[in-house]
Order: sequence, then structure tokens, then C-alpha cells
Amino acid sequence: MTNEINVAIIGQRFMGRAHANAYRQVRAFFDPPLSPRLRLACGRNETALTEFARRFGWEEHSTDWHNAVSRDDIDLIDICSANDLHAEIAIQAARAGKAVFCEKPLGRDLSEARRMLAAVEEAEVPHMICFNNRFYPAIRLAKKLIADGAIGEVRQFHALYLQDWGLDPNIPFTWRFDKDKAGSGALGDTAVHITDLARFLVGEITEVVGDLSTFIKERPLTDGSGTGRVTVDDAAAFLARFENGASGVFETTRVATGRKNFMHIEVNGTKGSIYWNPEDLNVLWFYSLDDPKETRGFRRILVTEPDHPYVENWWPPGHILGYEHSFVHAVYELLTAIAEGRNPEPSFHDGVKAQAVLEAVARSVETRAWVPVEG
Amino acid sequence: MTNEINVAIIGQRFMGRAHANAYRQVRAFFDPPLSPRLRLACGRNETALTEFARRFGWEEHSTDWHNAVSRDDIDLIDICSANDLHAEIAIQAARAGKAVFCEKPLGRDLSEARRMLAAVEEAEVPHMICFNNRFYPAIRLAKKLIADGAIGEVRQFHALYLQDWGLDPNIPFTWRFDKDKAGSGALGDTAVHITDLARFLVGEITEVVGDLSTFIKERPLTDGSGTGRVTVDDAAAFLARFENGASGVFETTRVATGRKNFMHIEVNGTKGSIYWNPEDLNVLWFYSLDDPKETRGFRRILVTEPDHPYVENWWPPGHILGYEHSFVHAVYELLTAIAEGRNPEPSFHDGVKAQAVLEAVARSVETRAWVPVEG
Amino acid sequence: MTNEINVAIIGQRFMGRAHANAYRQVRAFFDPPLSPRLRLACGRNETALTEFARRFGWEEHSTDWHNAVSRDDIDLIDICSANDLHAEIAIQAARAGKAVFCEKPLGRDLSEARRMLAAVEEAEVPHMICFNNRFYPAIRLAKKLIADGAIGEVRQFHALYLQDWGLDPNIPFTWRFDKDKAGSGALGDTAVHITDLARFLVGEITEVVGDLSTFIKERPLTDGSGTGRVTVDDAAAFLARFENGASGVFETTRVATGRKNFMHIEVNGTKGSIYWNPEDLNVLWFYSLDDPKETRGFRRILVTEPDHPYVENWWPPGHILGYEHSFVHAVYELLTAIAEGRNPEPSFHDGVKAQAVLEAVARSVETRAWVPVEG
Amino acid sequence: MTNEINVAIIGQRFMGRAHANAYRQVRAFFDPPLSPRLRLACGRNETALTEFARRFGWEEHSTDWHNAVSRDDIDLIDICSANDLHAEIAIQAARAGKAVFCEKPLGRDLSEARRMLAAVEEAEVPHMICFNNRFYPAIRLAKKLIADGAIGEVRQFHALYLQDWGLDPNIPFTWRFDKDKAGSGALGDTAVHITDLARFLVGEITEVVGDLSTFIKERPLTDGSGTGRVTVDDAAAFLARFENGASGVFETTRVATGRKNFMHIEVNGTKGSIYWNPEDLNVLWFYSLDDPKETRGFRRILVTEPDHPYVENWWPPGHILGYEHSFVHAVYELLTAIAEGRNPEPSFHDGVKAQAVLEAVARSVETRAWVPVEG
Repeated sequence: MTNEINVAIIGQRFMGRAHANAYRQVRAFFDPPLSPRLRLACGRNETALTEFARRFGWEEHSTDWHNAVSRDDIDLIDICSANDLHAEIAIQAARAGKAVFCEKPLGRDLSEARRMLAAVEEAEVPHMICFNNRFYPAIRLAKKLIADGAIGEVRQFHALYLQDWGLDPNIPFTWRFDKDKAGSGALGDTAVHITDLARFLVGEITEVVGDLSTFIKERPLTDGSGTGRVTVDDAAAFLARFENGASGVFETTRVATGRKNFMHIEVNGTKGSIYWNPEDLNVLWFYSLDDPKETRGFRRILVTEPDHPYVENWWPPGHILGYEHSFVHAVYELLTAIAEGRNPEPSFHDGVKAQAVLEAVARSVETRAWVPVEG
Repeated sequence: MTNEINVAIIGQRFMGRAHANAYRQVRAFFDPPLSPRLRLACGRNETALTEFARRFGWEEHSTDWHNAVSRDDIDLIDICSANDLHAEIAIQAARAGKAVFCEKPLGRDLSEARRMLAAVEEAEVPHMICFNNRFYPAIRLAKKLIADGAIGEVRQFHALYLQDWGLDPNIPFTWRFDKDKAGSGALGDTAVHITDLARFLVGEITEVVGDLSTFIKERPLTDGSGTGRVTVDDAAAFLARFENGASGVFETTRVATGRKNFMHIEVNGTKGSIYWNPEDLNVLWFYSLDDPKETRGFRRILVTEPDHPYVENWWPPGHILGYEHSFVHAVYELLTAIAEGRNPEPSFHDGVKAQAVLEAVARSVETRAWVPVEG
Repeated sequence: MTNEINVAIIGQRFMGRAHANAYRQVRAFFDPPLSPRLRLACGRNETALTEFARRFGWEEHSTDWHNAVSRDDIDLIDICSANDLHAEIAIQAARAGKAVFCEKPLGRDLSEARRMLAAVEEAEVPHMICFNNRFYPAIRLAKKLIADGAIGEVRQFHALYLQDWGLDPNIPFTWRFDKDKAGSGALGDTAVHITDLARFLVGEITEVVGDLSTFIKERPLTDGSGTGRVTVDDAAAFLARFENGASGVFETTRVATGRKNFMHIEVNGTKGSIYWNPEDLNVLWFYSLDDPKETRGFRRILVTEPDHPYVENWWPPGHILGYEHSFVHAVYELLTAIAEGRNPEPSFHDGVKAQAVLEAVARSVETRAWVPVEG
Repeated sequence: MTNEINVAIIGQRFMGRAHANAYRQVRAFFDPPLSPRLRLACGRNETALTEFARRFGWEEHSTDWHNAVSRDDIDLIDICSANDLHAEIAIQAARAGKAVFCEKPLGRDLSEARRMLAAVEEAEVPHMICFNNRFYPAIRLAKKLIADGAIGEVRQFHALYLQDWGLDPNIPFTWRFDKDKAGSGALGDTAVHITDLARFLVGEITEVVGDLSTFIKERPLTDGSGTGRVTVDDAAAFLARFENGASGVFETTRVATGRKNFMHIEVNGTKGSIYWNPEDLNVLWFYSLDDPKETRGFRRILVTEPDHPYVENWWPPGHILGYEHSFVHAVYELLTAIAEGRNPEPSFHDGVKAQAVLEAVARSVETRAWVPVEG
């Protein structure tokens, strides 16, 4: 490995584009110790793949992802495929000695996720899961404030994560609605985000009880031959207990009419509170009992100042960042950790931990009772 | 009973003042068919009671609430006492043939609430529980929109209700922290509000699973003789299933630092959504799929127009109402229903129904599992 | 004058109701050293007046306001009439030795306002103008913060005050659209509010240049006999210089579609800023350079804490106040000042000062140039 | 000119980076008919320039901007230099037959701007000014709504544009504070943005009266040799009349403590209104009288849907865009217009028109009176 790191990506849709953009942008705005070289893009649809490669500057492309794993000149495999390929690709990549960067959720279920973790650990390759929310400046600042004790001891965590993209019953039956391919629905897709944020900001979750809802039970097949039965959840909710005694409420849905990417994530501590919403992602709200009594109130911190995390590399105060920037920051951390011989964060450990929570939620739905999260 | 209705109130603190104010204001701004005459105020602290009576114009006062029940010239008993007296007062009042208006929660527990309901039904006296949130113009409009089908079929209900008045561990050990007197903590005090709103806007709840937290376990006794053990919850959360298939998430707390009377109550239907917060109570947010695609968005409806519920009786558009106005509207409905020979809404039935939900939550905390709500 | 003060009110519409309510409520929630006795209500429409008197408890009523002035048993004349009667009533009331409480604007023009001031000063009677915005807890807190130096030296003042009640061209031609009766349109009606707030929070205005717009030039006469020519402004805007070197921008309109009572009032100082909007009147936004750099942001202060101005007399934290409460506070200050032998604030001096600014704006519209505000 | 267009940029600071990023990103997310080739970057600081070229992929760099103009293999000159070089570069570029893309303000004053326009017109080269705000999806949607008549006839325009980057008196005396180099202060820097938005959304401005303020009159020289006298404005405000009868209020400042890039831009029409703020730039607020009376309210349109302008090329609904995206869209329009043989919009005509307004403001400050905007 030289100063360059050779990247192969698998998947060229939403996540593929977000990752590809990140590799390009990180060189323009940051100084990562390794410069990503975009060697190979893999995907199933050749036409779309060709265009994807051209747009983002991938040197080569292939409709067979095994090429990415088998080639010697690839250092890092970036997995943006459908969920049902995550495990197979990651494990083969690890065995081939490549660093692995994987989209969430890690596997379709906990056991898959664990096998993936075992593989990267056995192979001693760097591994990272892309929980992009951790890399927003506002969330980074929240983490710092909590770590600094600015809100005291955390007592409560609340997260609503509401979207409505699944609302239309005419949305076709894709892999996302098929439990075999996706593992789960909103649970793995969006609850996993708030679960990771909870772990990042508060700590480990030990027990849960949850509920899953499927409101639209059939969706049209893409080939027009009828409908497919939806085997995943449209919405998921659960109560949780954290190791440190805090309590948590989690909810996510794909059918909250009018909600696009709304999150109300709030952490209450003994000395203060914070909350955040990715639809206004540059803003962190912060309340502190240290403020004079008369003027206490939630502060709308526009996290666009040079001394806020990652901001100095971008624009002057008040010029807001968007969704895609979180991926640039994630890639920056990935490259830096690899160059420094550390494993990046969040790692597959974090992927497994989050999935253990979701798996416990799913079990609790079966047992209709609280269940412990497996260690 | 003439055109006047003779009122006795029991309790002269926060709720007593809110109710007393309502009786006075209703005559100035509305035309209730019965005019409340403020005959008797009861409370334990004579000094405070005397002042209360003077301020709000109660003709007489007494430190013994039994007087209210035993006097013939009282038509309506308004119960604003601590929770542990609700049942006794209500039952005696009913037996004495008086109309009863009771603060929430109805009783300390479900069985008390049921006895209260039985008493008023047996006595065939009018009965109402003061779920004041139902009487905000914005909530009234929400109810109307939902009833009109404006958001379609309801699928999801979310309610966070966050306060922080219990945050300071030096707040003394009053009846509110004693299970024997209060019945429960945040559960009965604030979760009952969102439970009632859920029933009002969505329908009956059939199953729940919940969690209760007590973060501050001892509080100083008021006489300085040491501390009392807190036997109620600081925070309560539960998942719910509605009869109509909707799912719900409920959470309330007294220790969410910085939150004063924050509620995020949201209802998502197949065609639209609404949400509301009593800290900005004149505003209802409404999203409709009927809007043109290009300009869809949550509308900030400032519910201060003459054709909005109750508004015409107050001020011109844009001149906002406050917390206390909800009680004026509640009293207006109470008086109107009595005059018209109907039982007012919400009645003790609603009080029982809400309490059945909370009781199920409490049971689920014991069993650590979902439990059905008793019918 | 005993412990009671005998009040006569002239006018029973929007402002009459707001004032009448204030006299009643002030006794229930505050301890004014003088107790207002509602002796006489005057108005032109006997039916409406009778109802008004009944609702708010005025002992007597009369369709001839001269009765209020001529009777010996009246101590305080409260002027809520149309603008064209303000001067005559106030001057006669003063000559009759009565305290005078007058709605804004003081007179129809500066000269009228000055005559009113001269009259009350010559008669040495207490005089107050009802700039109700000064009495919101949030504005009171803003004043205190500025006085305490919390935002440093004030440099800039911005005020947009947008309403749309004049939008419909079918709104009939009432006195408000007739310059002879109203003096001016939005200028005297709503610009006067932000002018007074500017003086209250920042200081005296020395120079202005402005613009007036009349978009709807004819309105239907109420008797159906045709249309009347609108001789007042629908919208007013002006730039200003303050004595202390600050600069100001003011704008108000009655035809800003969708705006009900929207105000963006902002004060920027060398160390901080504040802003406020009466549609969310319990909230004051405050920014301070004293905050740690990392967490600076505008604080949403929910001005409902017991140590905030006036709040302790009402409800617990988070339970919001409405529009009408500002009048209760104003009346409380009026009664307190009279009892203490001080002249209340804001006085007719403030009414004149505000009107001098508006008059300068009107002159600048004629001259198309900056003009000094008369001292 | 082939399918590629050879670009030279002059300036490598804030604007240079924003433009350079746009050329790179436009190829990844859009399909411009011309592909920008980043040939030459010019700037005075060789170290910074070298880094800039490396980061963004400029093939060559030079500390002498004349190279950009004199080389035959450059098709497009992009001017991101300090304001005092705009005219010279643009005129030479035009004479050399190159397309010119220039940052705002066009020149230091109106006469410079006019000379620039004359030069590009005489040379018949494509010319565009970078008013980036026009290219936000929300503003594009606002334009469309207004053009479609969704808010009826426009009557009023309000724009506050508040920043605080000039607040600290220790900020050194750079070209931005020197009238000879910058032409003006906030007037040319930020008022020019809201002036262009006003023209874009409402139409031509015919008359103005304004005010300029300089609060910090001396700033330290960068070489430590003392202080320089600030000869530009910290804040600018003006009233305006539009050709179509609408009225306008404009204000901008660099010293509004706590404000980073806050804009309240609002347009009120006879049938509706819109408003927008770049600190939350993905949101457009829209009010329509076409909505049912009961549910009228400002809609928070999250302008991130596929059928919103430019959005489909980026991310799914709810995933917000940032500041820099506006430049990508601007460059997309520039390249498309050049390829199609049209002149891009906004052109140097728009630059001149905006500057004519600002120049009129400056004149009005001298005459202390309304002045017409030169045609």
C-alpha cells in the first residue's frame, strides 16, 4: 500500500453514489493521509454501472463483484449492495486481506453480522460500518458535549425517526420488502440508525421490548405478474434500558405521511439536554443548567463555525452542509484510521452491537415480552 | 336548579385556580345556558383558602370539604384536591345528587376510578373529567379534521410529553411522590393526558407494554426530619395497539432537563398527518396528500381564526390564547351539557378508560410483557 | 379615593373587551394596591353595550360618554373609542380631574397628541397610554437584559410587523380607513407599536425617512350605497436613526397574505442580540457572546418561569400566557403607579414621542427625504 | 470548442473553492452538454494556489491572471478575485473572445459594471454573474410559484440579510473594508444578493432611499503597523418601489451579533405569500388563499422531492442539500446555455441592474432623499 489506497465499490445506487462522492470530495476538502484511487465499480445493471463509473471516475467496472475481491490491486472493498450480499462480500473480502467498509445494517440478521465480524477479525483487516449520522458536525459536537459532562449523567434517550417513502401501496415489491433479502424493514433500515446513535451518545442497551407493524401487506411485483407479500415491517418501535441505567424510547416508520427524513433525537441528562433533526442537520439544540436561571433555554447552535467538528474544511459560518457531507467525513476517518494502523470507528463490532439490539426487538415481538440484548 | 348553577370547589392550588378562573371567564366570553355561581371553596389551608376565595369571588369557604357535599344549595362539585381524595369526594357528591367535575386522573387506580364511575351512574348525576387538552382550539380542529377524514385512516400515534419540574432532588417529598396518595407519578399525572388525547383522536387502546423509571429515589421531607422514599415514577413509557389497528408510542417524564411543558403529539394517517405542542398551543401542523405534489408540506395553522373552534369568542386572528383558556372551554361544555340534559364529555367513562390503560401499563411493568387493557 | 378606584370605560369593542377583562383579572391574579370597581361603560351601540356591561360586570352603562367625564364618582377614564374621540375625551377627563388611560395611538396626529399631553399635565392627573406589548413577560425580560448590558451597546433595530386583516377588498369602509377619523392606517395602528417598542428597548429616534402604500383604494360603504375612498395607508415602512447612534428599520402592513400578528422584532448589540414574535409571545430569543464559543446560539427562552416578570402570579413553567395577559399587567402597573403617587409608564409623553416619529414619517413621505423627528 | 470547455479560474479563496467544486460536481450529478476541463488556476499566493490546484484538479496554475486571458486554449474565464480586479479581467477576457463567469458584485461601482457589460456585448461572448441564491431548489420553486400566479399579484417584498462576521473589531483591515478595492461594504457584498433576489422574484426597482452605517471605523492593519480607516459600510438598509407597484424593504448587516447567514426574505401577493432563509435553505414556506379556510397556514415545503428543481439529480426526499449545491446548479445552467448558444442567466445585464440599485442607494445616502434607479 502506497500513499494511494485502491478502492472497489459494490453497488451503484443511492449508497453507491453517496460513497463514490465521498471518495472524490475528501481529497478536495480534507487532507487524508491516504488518497483513494477509484479503481473498480461493481453492480448488476451494466448500463447504470457504466454511467456510474463515468460520473464518479471509476477506472474500471464489472458486473461481477467477485472481481473486486479476487484482484490483487484492490485494497479496500466498499459494500453498498443490497443487504443479502453484505455478508458474502465482506467475508470474502476479508479472506482476501482487504479492508472492508460496509453499509448498514451489517448483515440481514445478527448471526450474519457476527460471521462478518469474525471474518474481519480473523483476517485482521480494517473494518468499518457506515453509520453516517455519527459524522455530522452537530452529532460530533453532541458527542463531545456529552463526553465533557455538559449535560451531566444521561437519564433518558428518545428517538423518533419518521419517513414516508413506503406510503404509496403502488411502490413495487423490491428486495427491501422481502425479509429473505433485507432481513427486516424499517427495523434494519432506519431503526438501526437511531440504535447506533443511542449507543454512540449514551451507551450499551441491555434490554428491549418492541413492536413491529406492517400496514401494507401486498405490493405489486415489478414484472406486473401480480403482487408480492411484504414480509418486513413498515414501522418499528421499542422501549429500552441502557447499561448505565438510562431509559430509551425508539420509533421508526416508513409510512408517516408527510415526514421525509424527520428525526427527533433527544438526550436528557442531569445537567442539560440536547436534541437534533437531520432535516435541519446543521443545528444542534442544547440546554444547560449552567446558564443563568433567567436566560436558560435551548440554544439553537448553528454548527457551522470553524471550531466545530469538520467545519473548517468547508465554508464560512452560516453556510450549511448537506446530507452527503457526512459520508465525506466518514471516509476521511476511515482513511485516517487505516493509515495510522488503527481500526476505524464505528467498526463491525458496532454493527454487531446494533444488530443485537434489533434482533432482541424482533425476539421480543415473538415473545411479547422484554428480552435481554445478547452481549 | 335555576338559570344559575351553584358551584363548590375543593382544592385551591394550581388546578383550583385554573377552574375558578374558568367559571369567572366563561360568563364574560361565552354564553353558557347556566351561569355558575361561586358559592363555596374548600381547602385545608385556611389562610390560602381565604385569599383564594377573595381573589376569585367565592362567596364562602370552608376547611372541611364535607360541607360542600352536605349542603343543599350546591349543584356542582368541582374536585381539584390531591388525588387521594378524588374518589371519596366524588362518590359522596354523587350520592348527594350533585353534578361532579373532577380533575385527572380520575382515581389513584383503576378500581377507584371504577367505583367513582359506578357512583355517578347509580346516582344519575352529570359527571365530567377535566382533560383540558381536549379543549384547545387546535386539538378541537385536529379532532374535526380526523373525523372528516382529512388524514385518512389513522395508522400511527406518537406522543412525547416532557417536563422537568421534578429535576431538582431538593424538591420536597409531597403527596405527588407518594404512591399511596398519588397512585402513580408521571404515569397518572402526565401520561394520562396523552392517553386521553390518543383515545380522543385515534380510538381505544387494547394492549400495552411499558416501562417506569424512578431516577430520584429519596426526597427531603417538608418538616426537615429526613427524607421520604419516592414510590412513584419520574418517567413512564409504553407501546400500544389500538382497536383500529393503529400503533402507538407514549412517553412522559418529569426530569427532561430544559423541557417545561413540551409535547410532541403526532397522528399519521393514510392521507395526511397532524402534530401539536402545548408550548405553542395555538398552532396545529397539518399535512395533506390532497395538496398539489409540488407544494406539499406541513402547514402551520395558527388556530386563531373566527371559524376555528371557540376562537370567535375571544380575540381577532393572530392574538393567541394561553393555557387557562382550555379550562374556560371545558367549563363551557360542562355547563352546556348539564343545561341540555346530556352528560358532558369527557365523562368518568373516559376517566376510567384512560386509567385502564395506565393500569395495564403498570401491570405490564410487573409482568415484563404486553398485557391487554381491561375493557 | 379609597382602596377602590372607580373606572369608566368608553368603547366596548376589541379594546374595550381587552381592558374590561384586565380590570377583572388583575384582582384575581395580582395584588394591586387599588381595586378597580367597574362603574360605567360607555358606547354608541346600546344593544352591544348592554351585553358588554353584563358580561364584564359594569354596574351601569351609557350611550353618552360625557356622562363618564361629568360624574363625580368616576376616578379613572379608560379610552377605547375610535381614534377621533381620543383627544376630546382625554382632555375633558383631565379637566374633570380624572386619571386617563388611553389606547394607542394617542391622537390622530401629533398636534392632537400634544394637546392631550398638555391637558393631563396641566390638570396634574395620572395618564397612561396602553402600549400593551411592553407588558409581555418576554418583552419585560428583553428590557431587563438590555438594561443590564447583556447585549452590550445597541447598534441595530429591525421590526417587521405583518398582518393581513385588510386583505379582502370587500372589507367595508369603516373609520379605520378614513384619515379624518383614524389619522392614519397601518402607521398609527401597528407601526405605532413597533415604534414604541423601539423607544422602550433602544431609545429616542431622531430622524426618519419612510414610505406609505395604499393597495386597496376603494372599499364598499356599509350602507351599500357605493364605495368609500381609502385615505389611509395599508402598509408603512421607514428607516430611522436613534439618538444613541443605532440604526433602525421598521415595516408594517395589513395586507401581508397569511400573516396574522407576525412580528420579527430584533435588537443587535455589541455583545448579543434578542428577537421576539407575538405569535409565539412566551418565547424570547437571546444570543450572548458570553457563552462558550463552541455552544453559542440563540436561546429559546420560554419566559414562563416564576422568576420571569409577572409569571409567578399565573401558572407553573411551560403553561403559556396569551395576548390578553399583557393588558392585565398594564392595568396592574397603572393601578400601582396611581396608588403610589407616581405617573404610570408609558405615559402620554410616550404617546407623543411615538406619534412624533410617525408624523415625521408622514412628512418624509411628502418631502421624499429624511426628516428630523420633532423633539 | 469541443464537447469539453476549458476553464481558467482567477481567485482561490472562498469563492474560488465554491466554483472549483461546482465544476467537479456538475459532471458527477448532472449531464451538462459541455464538460468542464479545469485547465488553469490563477491567484496571487503561490503556496495556497498550488494546494488549491492539487485539491480540485486544476491542471496548471499561475500567479499572473493575464495568462488566463492570453492563452488560446481557455474558453471560459471564471472571476473569483477581489472586486477591484473584476472589471479589468472581464474586459480583457471578453476582448480575447472568452466566455466570462463573474462573482458578484459585477464591478466596484455602476460605471465599472457598465463597462464590463459593454465589453462582453461588444465581444459577443457569453457572460454570467454568479448570483448563487437563484439556484437553490427552494428559490427556483418560489420563482415558479410566483410565475404561475400562485401568490397572485406581488405587493410587498421584505428582506433582512443578517450576518455577524464583521463584529470583532480585531478583524484585520483587508480589501473588503477599503472602498477603493471593494467599492462598498455590506451593500455590494450582501445587499446585492437580496437586490438580485428581489429582481428575480418581483421585478425591476425604480426608486430607493437608503441608509449606510459604519460602526467599526478603524481596523488593525495586517502588518501590525497600526490601523486602517474603514471606508465601507457595515450595514445597509433601503426602501424601494418596484416598477409593478410593489414596495420593498431591504436590510443587510455584517454586525448582527449571533446571525451567521440569516435571511428573512418574504414576498406577499394578493393570493399568497412565500418566505425563505438560507440557514434552512431546503425549506420554502408558502401560504395560499386557495387552501380551505379552516386549514390555511404557511406550508413548510421541504424542497427535496424528485419533482422539485434540480433535486432528482441528488438524493432521495428529506436528504438535504447545502450551500455549495447552488454553485453546482449555476455552473450547470452556465454550461447548458453556452452549449445551446443562449446567453446564460443571470447575465451581466442583471449584474448592472443590481448595481444600479445599489448605486442609487449610495446616491440617496448623499442626497438624504429618494432617488430614481438609473435605467
